[in-house]
Amino acid sequence: MTEFTPGFDDKTPLYDQLYRYIVSLIRSGELTQGEKLPSKRRLAEHLGVSLTTVEKAYGLLMAEGYLESYPRSGCRVSPALAAIPVPSRNASPPTPKREELDECFSTSAVDTSIFPFSTWARLSREAVYQNPELLQRGEGQGDWSLRSALSDFLHQYRGVNCSPEQVMLGAGLEGVMWILLQLLPQAVFGLEDPGYGTLRKLLDNLGRRYVPVPVDEKGMEVSALERSRAEVAYVTPSHQFPLGIVTPVGRRGELLRWAYEKPGRYLIEDDYDSEFRYASRPIPAMQGLDNGGRVIYVGTFSRTIAPSIRVAYLILPPELLELYHQKFHHASATVSRFEQETLCRFLTSGAYGRHLRRVGNLYRKRRDALCSALEGWGELRGTDGGLHLLFTLPGREEVDLVARAAKAGYRVRGLGEYCLGKDPLPGTLVLGFAGLPEARSEGAVADLKKAFQK
Amino acid sequence: MTEFTPGFDDKTPLYDQLYRYIVSLIRSGELTQGEKLPSKRRLAEHLGVSLTTVEKAYGLLMAEGYLESYPRSGCRVSPALAAIPVPSRNASPPTPKREELDECFSTSAVDTSIFPFSTWARLSREAVYQNPELLQRGEGQGDWSLRSALSDFLHQYRGVNCSPEQVMLGAGLEGVMWILLQLLPQAVFGLEDPGYGTLRKLLDNLGRRYVPVPVDEKGMEVSALERSRAEVAYVTPSHQFPLGIVTPVGRRGELLRWAYEKPGRYLIEDDYDSEFRYASRPIPAMQGLDNGGRVIYVGTFSRTIAPSIRVAYLILPPELLELYHQKFHHASATVSRFEQETLCRFLTSGAYGRHLRRVGNLYRKRRDALCSALEGWGELRGTDGGLHLLFTLPGREEVDLVARAAKAGYRVRGLGEYCLGKDPLPGTLVLGFAGLPEARSEGAVADLKKAFQK
Repeated sequence: MTEFTPGFDDKTPLYDQLYRYIVSLIRSGELTQGEKLPSKRRLAEHLGVSLTTVEKAYGLLMAEGYLESYPRSGCRVSPALAAIPVPSRNASPPTPKREELDECFSTSAVDTSIFPFSTWARLSREAVYQNPELLQRGEGQGDWSLRSALSDFLHQYRGVNCSPEQVMLGAGLEGVMWILLQLLPQAVFGLEDPGYGTLRKLLDNLGRRYVPVPVDEKGMEVSALERSRAEVAYVTPSHQFPLGIVTPVGRRGELLRWAYEKPGRYLIEDDYDSEFRYASRPIPAMQGLDNGGRVIYVGTFSRTIAPSIRVAYLILPPELLELYHQKFHHASATVSRFEQETLCRFLTSGAYGRHLRRVGNLYRKRRDALCSALEGWGELRGTDGGLHLLFTLPGREEVDLVARAAKAGYRVRGLGEYCLGKDPLPGTLVLGFAGLPEARSEGAVADLKKAFQK
Repeated sequence: MTEFTPGFDDKTPLYDQLYRYIVSLIRSGELTQGEKLPSKRRLAEHLGVSLTTVEKAYGLLMAEGYLESYPRSGCRVSPALAAIPVPSRNASPPTPKREELDECFSTSAVDTSIFPFSTWARLSREAVYQNPELLQRGEGQGDWSLRSALSDFLHQYRGVNCSPEQVMLGAGLEGVMWILLQLLPQAVFGLEDPGYGTLRKLLDNLGRRYVPVPVDEKGMEVSALERSRAEVAYVTPSHQFPLGIVTPVGRRGELLRWAYEKPGRYLIEDDYDSEFRYASRPIPAMQGLDNGGRVIYVGTFSRTIAPSIRVAYLILPPELLELYHQKFHHASATVSRFEQETLCRFLTSGAYGRHLRRVGNLYRKRRDALCSALEGWGELRGTDGGLHLLFTLPGREEVDLVARAAKAGYRVRGLGEYCLGKDPLPGTLVLGFAGLPEARSEGAVADLKKAFQK
């Protein structure tokens, strides 16, 4: 018979200590399968504790299946317990270390210092304090108030034609792709090449099929799209990523015609940084040209407000909206309702429009500073909008340039990193400027110049 | 030659009105492909506006591809434009109407009236005001502070063994399944039958493979699991949904042994409402027994705080953690950082633990009230924990009971609605009580009794 010699302390209830002690005896094998335990009364006397204490401990052990109770023969250790290995606290695996490089040329940088944070914080406080009912489940596609504000905003600023019913909110690109991939579970995607790497990575991770479709000087090549197996084309007509091209209205028409030719074809229009145009005002979205219900419009606030604001949106054409209602009957929104309410107030109060103008001016100055620092060195492209530009040094190897920049402490990316097929402009770097203050442009460019000298 | 007769107002800039007017002429077909436009100077004179106004309008039209400029012959309408249909504002499709039934027996109800909202609102305000740096991108798997608080909490309350490195935050079940499905892109899932319908729906939507595995009185049947093609078993050992069974430690051991037998096998432990136990304290999680790195632990705050708080979490075993770092190198978290910070403060201040005790007492009273109202009528099962119970009227048809309840104004669900295979307990209703105040129990049960009379 196993000896019961627990060492009791007075920090936790006695029954709990006794329970843990017996679990440890079972796990260590000191109490074996089928072994009989002392009766409750005997154990209570032995340990000098109350009968209730032992009863509670045995009760827990039975509830969890460690012990089984047999009529007239008391409690025994349950069978099949020996199979459970002794648990040990897992050691932390080392976190993979990223190199510490200056990210001032990052294409995904956002300057949040100009963001009207105190306004946001005030609206957030009001949104929370005034609306305890927002704790309850909201609409699966997002709350009506924000969807309504958003459809007005997109109509006015982007020429998008939609009703609030067509708007779906999601937690960032991830949240909206989550919806889209459920609406289009079998579709083969046509992705712009060069194009957005995160999207490719995502489809790779999920084992989803896609084909690269080359981009020429007007955007996705429709003849190549036609030859491909793609059923859904993911395009960035307002500002191609990373080439910075604006797709002219004629090409937009050809893309729409492609989509209209067969049922099940769609264009996903990712309007990711269309808010920022420097040469003219923003080009209206392709969605506004679509009268056949074939454009799915995607946008986000990650660039215009802050990366940590996890709100993106989809505008679904009517046909997919029906499918959405069938497939997402019980789905919950992935965006916090308090954040939805804060953002809604930010839009309808006009604060967002004001912020867009201010931050647009800031980025224009940064673009100007970077352009003039680079002027006369190599070729510049894609400088009319967005938050990055292309800089080409003909005859140079991109991998060499990237490596030299890294040695000098800067992370830059070659255009080839965005290509699945042939690099259309060898010797080209994709340089973001949203995270590069004007005063730093010249110094950073001088550092690169020095690093690139042979 | 087309007549230019725009009607100008003074609400928007003249160049913008002229631009819109010419777009409308092109879209309506009044200006045709290749048609020559008047020179800028002539049009300015004709309309009585400045040359700059016309230049800006033509500039926009060229930027968008409506016009093309030819040396010495001025501007012409671009070809290929006729293909674009005239856009019209889409009519709103009717939103599908749900029946308006009393949801007091819903299994997903949460009573948020007892939630310490003023504490939450204060912590939220502090989290926002004190941390403008939270606007910037955080860690893809969630911020360290919350992951650390969560791993401590889960260790203490649920016996989970993990380091903060193993914790992944996601926007609700959707957000964590998004991660899991990318980590296990090819896996065949084994789902408890009866089981959680939302999960099945999700896998259906995504075209992912799964097999139902029957549940007996101890949880998922391991012999059936072994015979199935399942590689990843999704289980609810703390409180099987919807049967309310606690899987005893012996069966947990068998499940673990199944997972250890072949590489690539995992157990997903959904610990969805384990916080609520009425007969004893909560049963520790199966994750704490796993020493082979085969349990993926899933939990959420939707039940314990509020449905609109979109924070769920995954605890990954070390092997999947490596895969995560490979696959999610550039991924962003789907949870707002401000909400992460608020929740972190709610946990570490002890407010969450206090809330759990209070809300546990509330739900215990509601369970007691429902049980005593039902007593003597039919058979009760699964009343020891969670937020729902099973109520069986032997010999009755579930669909008939559900229809009669609906006629009386109540939405209830039959156990068969959660089954893919045979209903293990015909004549059983799954009744939630979290949304049923004590004072309403007797009345609601009396209504059902009356409705069920033949």
